[in-house]
Amino acid sequence: MGAPLEFYFDFASPYGYLASVDLERLASRHGRGVIWRPILLGAVFKITGVKPNLHHPLRGEYLLRDTVRFARLRGIPFTTPSSMPMSALAASRAFYWLDTLDALDAAGEGSGGGGGGDGGGSGRAVTLARAVFHSHFVEGRDLGPREAVAALAATCLGLDQRAVLAGIDQPEVKDRLRQETDRAIERGVFGSPFVFADGEPFWGADRLDQVDRWLDSGGW
Amino acid sequence: MGAPLEFYFDFASPYGYLASVDLERLASRHGRGVIWRPILLGAVFKITGVKPNLHHPLRGEYLLRDTVRFARLRGIPFTTPSSMPMSALAASRAFYWLDTLDALDAAGEGSGGGGGGDGGGSGRAVTLARAVFHSHFVEGRDLGPREAVAALAATCLGLDQRAVLAGIDQPEVKDRLRQETDRAIERGVFGSPFVFADGEPFWGADRLDQVDRWLDSGGW
Repeated sequence: MGAPLEFYFDFASPYGYLASVDLERLASRHGRGVIWRPILLGAVFKITGVKPNLHHPLRGEYLLRDTVRFARLRGIPFTTPSSMPMSALAASRAFYWLDTLDALDAAGEGSGGGGGGDGGGSGRAVTLARAVFHSHFVEGRDLGPREAVAALAATCLGLDQRAVLAGIDQPEVKDRLRQETDRAIERGVFGSPFVFADGEPFWGADRLDQVDRWLDSGGW
Repeated sequence: MGAPLEFYFDFASPYGYLASVDLERLASRHGRGVIWRPILLGAVFKITGVKPNLHHPLRGEYLLRDTVRFARLRGIPFTTPSSMPMSALAASRAFYWLDTLDALDAAGEGSGGGGGGDGGGSGRAVTLARAVFHSHFVEGRDLGPREAVAALAATCLGLDQRAVLAGIDQPEVKDRLRQETDRAIERGVFGSPFVFADGEPFWGADRLDQVDRWLDSGGW
């Protein structure tokens, strides 16, 4: 089994959501895992001097049309949230809090990882990530408020909401999100989705067919 | 035969060049013409507050890698020009000067258009456009200087260089380029390439497969 695909995204990015669905299908076809890495694109935009697409004249209008058209073509359920772009801070922190717990569970089981703790698809962190995307981009809910993230985690993982809120507030969780965002920038990530396939960078939901080709042939 | 595809691009845009090759193949498969419409993205960037991708940290580095990789995948000859991004002003004006001459020729022949004058693929304007892209993105030449454009027009169309330079300087040619750029912005164009297929907007060289699908099925 080859190395997992590394999937950088912002929870507020519709193309990140759209790519997540196709990427899991694609990885599965190639017998690969997916390492989920939520980041805050706002930090990236500060460096690149870019604004979110939705805030651009012309580009924002196109995005609203294109995301719906893109989803329809691929058969992916999608609703344009009225809260777009939402704040991804609480959801991203909750993800890394759970990712750390997944890693502890995996270590406790002596498995040395492979599932929980590497964002690799089978842990609670990834379950939450899928739920955040679904709740926001299919049901149209605003997952910006930390209480909304805690309620979602309670529903889909059976967690105590107060524990989630406390987890979101842990200094080491905040540090982890900053570190993952910094690391992404160091690796050249400037948008969402951004996928590394065997180290090769691909930007954009419309480049997954190239990721597919890359994995088929080991490059071209 | 359906309506021609409308192809907006900036001569300085590597993705504009890459799309031009695939778009002509694609249009031909669907029995469609292509209306070439060079514009100056600088005017668009003033409105959208965007910089050329090449000038972005991270994004610029990705562009340099991605264009080469993209061209290799599609089998399109490509060299990264050392003069990138070049000024597209002279080449764009020369295009519209020739487009006007093509239209006069077509009117004189009583054909009422259909070839020359509509940027529709068979006129001297489009011959020059293909040559500009080839000279810049395959041979790596800088077509920014008006003298370079005039020399290229002499080589590929047998025109007198002084006539080309005079054409580039005509006030009505300068107006035409401004009008075409303004019209593009009115229609929502904010990047290169930007294609309208039966009125539907598609942005990006990596969306031509969607244009293909759209023409196959009349939408989805």
